[in-house]
Amino acid sequence: MREIVIGGAQMGAIQKADSRADVVARMIALLDQAAEAGCDLVVYPELTLTTFFPRWWMDDPAEIDQWFETEMPGPDTQPLFDAARKHGIAITFGYAEKTPEGRYFNTSILTDKEGNIVGKYRKTHLPGHSEYDEDRLFQHLEKKYFEPGDTGFPVWRNLDAWMGMCICNDRRWPEVYREMGLQGVELITLGYNTPTVNSQHGDEGLEKRLYHSDLSMSAGAYQNATWVVGVAKAGVEDGHPLMGGSIIVDPNGMVVARAKTEEDELIVHACDMDMCNFGKATIFDFKRHRRIEHYTRITGQTGVITPDQETRSAE
Amino acid sequence: MREIVIGGAQMGAIQKADSRADVVARMIALLDQAAEAGCDLVVYPELTLTTFFPRWWMDDPAEIDQWFETEMPGPDTQPLFDAARKHGIAITFGYAEKTPEGRYFNTSILTDKEGNIVGKYRKTHLPGHSEYDEDRLFQHLEKKYFEPGDTGFPVWRNLDAWMGMCICNDRRWPEVYREMGLQGVELITLGYNTPTVNSQHGDEGLEKRLYHSDLSMSAGAYQNATWVVGVAKAGVEDGHPLMGGSIIVDPNGMVVARAKTEEDELIVHACDMDMCNFGKATIFDFKRHRRIEHYTRITGQTGVITPDQETRSAE
Repeated sequence: MREIVIGGAQMGAIQKADSRADVVARMIALLDQAAEAGCDLVVYPELTLTTFFPRWWMDDPAEIDQWFETEMPGPDTQPLFDAARKHGIAITFGYAEKTPEGRYFNTSILTDKEGNIVGKYRKTHLPGHSEYDEDRLFQHLEKKYFEPGDTGFPVWRNLDAWMGMCICNDRRWPEVYREMGLQGVELITLGYNTPTVNSQHGDEGLEKRLYHSDLSMSAGAYQNATWVVGVAKAGVEDGHPLMGGSIIVDPNGMVVARAKTEEDELIVHACDMDMCNFGKATIFDFKRHRRIEHYTRITGQTGVITPDQETRSAE
Repeated sequence: MREIVIGGAQMGAIQKADSRADVVARMIALLDQAAEAGCDLVVYPELTLTTFFPRWWMDDPAEIDQWFETEMPGPDTQPLFDAARKHGIAITFGYAEKTPEGRYFNTSILTDKEGNIVGKYRKTHLPGHSEYDEDRLFQHLEKKYFEPGDTGFPVWRNLDAWMGMCICNDRRWPEVYREMGLQGVELITLGYNTPTVNSQHGDEGLEKRLYHSDLSMSAGAYQNATWVVGVAKAGVEDGHPLMGGSIIVDPNGMVVARAKTEEDELIVHACDMDMCNFGKATIFDFKRHRRIEHYTRITGQTGVITPDQETRSAE
């Protein structure tokens, strides 16, 4: 048994007016709860430190930059790292990163129990659009404010397990789990900010959107025999509702813990990393069963090419 | 609207002693039902024509060969093709194929409404093992009796839609759906023979095994915005129980029809192929969102390589 007690620290709404210090205080309050619950690791959402700003159109570079961190930890986040180190709890959380070279990423980091950053991931699959879209119920401008991540999907040894990260929309892409599965991943953590309403399909409904979130994470967990922890930023941010539904999924694809609210809420489960062993040795023993010679479209083409288009281009 | 009324023709148990003629008569009875229900397409299981013979160890080539078809249609299956043509119903079903060159495959074919074979698929992901395994509750010798398919995952134009096939264990591999998704697939049909009991994990339980089957098909459907129809051979074959759970899944990953029995049973749904359009144009618009430069492990390596192994081999 290699047990990691994991806390999923769902965050309720963060308003535009809330300061980093306000948010960090709420994060530390959840961390204190996690310490009492015996957690080894606490997982926070995507873009934990601010409101989900890509819903707003901004042109002024200074207005945009206010949402980005230029150092990690910085003055506002140092108290969080200090509290984590004091409790001996590893943490992972997302934030908007501006690099010294002036590049912008949607990033998450992972620390060890001493508060040292051991892993950094930059979001690969940016949803939404880069130009103003008047047909949408609201904007989703991740393709405007961020560039696609340049890290790929690394896996790190931490807390005696192989851990990887992804962020929000990444969780809907099976390639993400498989890239980490092929590195032996045992625990994938991710945060998300998912609007309660589909901006292009207003009548889709919350129930179906929660189902799609569960479905993607559960399938990724089962098909790679890995734990998956997905943590929401939830609640109504300046009039824009975000769904909750934070879950912990075991390596059989079963949801073992689920948030009940759309507010700051800690979900806890004692996760045995050795539960990954059976699936990895049997039905998903990749070495025995995968047939990579038949997967060539997956890396050979980005978009759809229907058979009639193939024929035309071969002529 | 491009509607295809699909019948999922689940088959109950087929005993060793049942003849091909017995089975084909049952298939035609389901086809007659499907005609009354207005079906355009009927989907039968994997290895529809016989019992699931890979559960038995056999050495005698003649004993093995009795389970294989050397022509399609042949004398035993011609009545099925004739009935399908009479009704104007396209069909797809699985069978064990022995080629003129003496190669053995787990195969499925697809016809048009005139009974012409328009597509052939050979199973890629063979589960189980090739040597006798005394630790198992029963044998699963697909790797002994078949070679891995050589077709890849083609997609064909049929009934005014893009259709593809896979078989049984293939449905658990996200690469399968994605290969077809990258060809614009709108309908994936598959059959399966899934034992009710995990031969290596006897207490897994039927409920979890049905869940894994649903989960894999629903995720494949949602993540590629395609219809998926999965049809079981079910019931107790010479003492060995096979699970049912045949389902039709829409391009949102929602199960819209489900078999209630473990016997011969037709499930029917009118499937609008245009329901695929929204997902393919938005959240799963591959051309805008996929990042193939970060998927290189998926085709670059078959098995797991953990980061410490990578480091060692680079030294």
